[in-house]
Amino acid sequence: MTVDEQERTESPRSKRRMILDAAIDNFGGVGFEHTKWATIADEVGIGQTALYHYFESKVHCLLTIMSTELERSLERTRTVTAGVDDPGEKIRVAVAAAFDVTQREALQARILMSHQDLLVGERSSKREEAERQRARELVREIEHEWAGLIKAATTARRRRKDDQIVLARLMLGMINSVWRWYRPEGAHSLEEISGVVVDSCARLID
Amino acid sequence: MTVDEQERTESPRSKRRMILDAAIDNFGGVGFEHTKWATIADEVGIGQTALYHYFESKVHCLLTIMSTELERSLERTRTVTAGVDDPGEKIRVAVAAAFDVTQREALQARILMSHQDLLVGERSSKREEAERQRARELVREIEHEWAGLIKAATTARRRRKDDQIVLARLMLGMINSVWRWYRPEGAHSLEEISGVVVDSCARLID
Repeated sequence: MTVDEQERTESPRSKRRMILDAAIDNFGGVGFEHTKWATIADEVGIGQTALYHYFESKVHCLLTIMSTELERSLERTRTVTAGVDDPGEKIRVAVAAAFDVTQREALQARILMSHQDLLVGERSSKREEAERQRARELVREIEHEWAGLIKAATTARRRRKDDQIVLARLMLGMINSVWRWYRPEGAHSLEEISGVVVDSCARLID
Repeated sequence: MTVDEQERTESPRSKRRMILDAAIDNFGGVGFEHTKWATIADEVGIGQTALYHYFESKVHCLLTIMSTELERSLERTRTVTAGVDDPGEKIRVAVAAAFDVTQREALQARILMSHQDLLVGERSSKREEAERQRARELVREIEHEWAGLIKAATTARRRRKDDQIVLARLMLGMINSVWRWYRPEGAHSLEEISGVVVDSCARLID
């Protein structure tokens, strides 16, 4: 059995993952608008009818990539900060972890950034709307997670509660803005950028 | 002559401005996808043929809104910093000016943020591509303007030149991220948000 054959006979769960990976590579490469739904079906080696079983539209698939990325990032933040005691250090490891990603995760983050306006308006399709709601809920959870980290690191200065949410949004806005311009072939390595962002976020709470 | 009649007989230059304003209100309100090109023509009181004379497509109009907003923001930064001597104060007034905007300018900034991925891929239409190039050039100019402000404020610490561009992008990323979530009816006033962002940007260079 070749690797290809092996992949094609795997569980529905991993088939779904294969579709998502192919979509990430295409949406992140040539862009969402220019990606043909049929190309994804071809790359994964399934018919378009089977493809529709997993995702009812290209937008449904895009929204799923977005909520999956948000979930991954929230889980990652929780995992890396769990073992750290110092509140300032918690923020530093959380920021560093945001840039400690695979190439596909970086693409996924970029897709999330480019299509955030999709989360604003209600979808007429039920499955699309469910995925949009999930993504919005995750955005709120992430903001509260970071506001909590900031609160713990700034207790002594008695920053106002409102400021913590605003500051969390600003910090996340700064971190996520990197995905707009970072390119693997660009002038700055992700490691180099990560260093500047970790230092900048530390300055925001010191 | 009523105000309405007066507007309709104004110069082509102000007719263009009226189209842009109507488009900003619609794209910023119901969204670009949901705005019908015919609605803009109706609101301005011209036929669709006349509308096409100014903008050959909805995308052409959107790209023009984006480059106009970039130009406005660059000019604003230059104007408010020109009369200030202290390098740290220059950055503070530049950040504050970014939030000292009319409601329509805030919408314009939000439209720019939501459609930045439009600046990535080449357009097949000549007029669209010219406007996209103009917008990209302005993004570069803005980044260099802010990198210059940052350089002046951090000379003593001999920050590396590369870091200045990265830091400018991070600072602009933080400032611009506000337009994603700020709503006039939201929990935080623009004045309140501005205060937190000015303080945050000052911390990044101190």
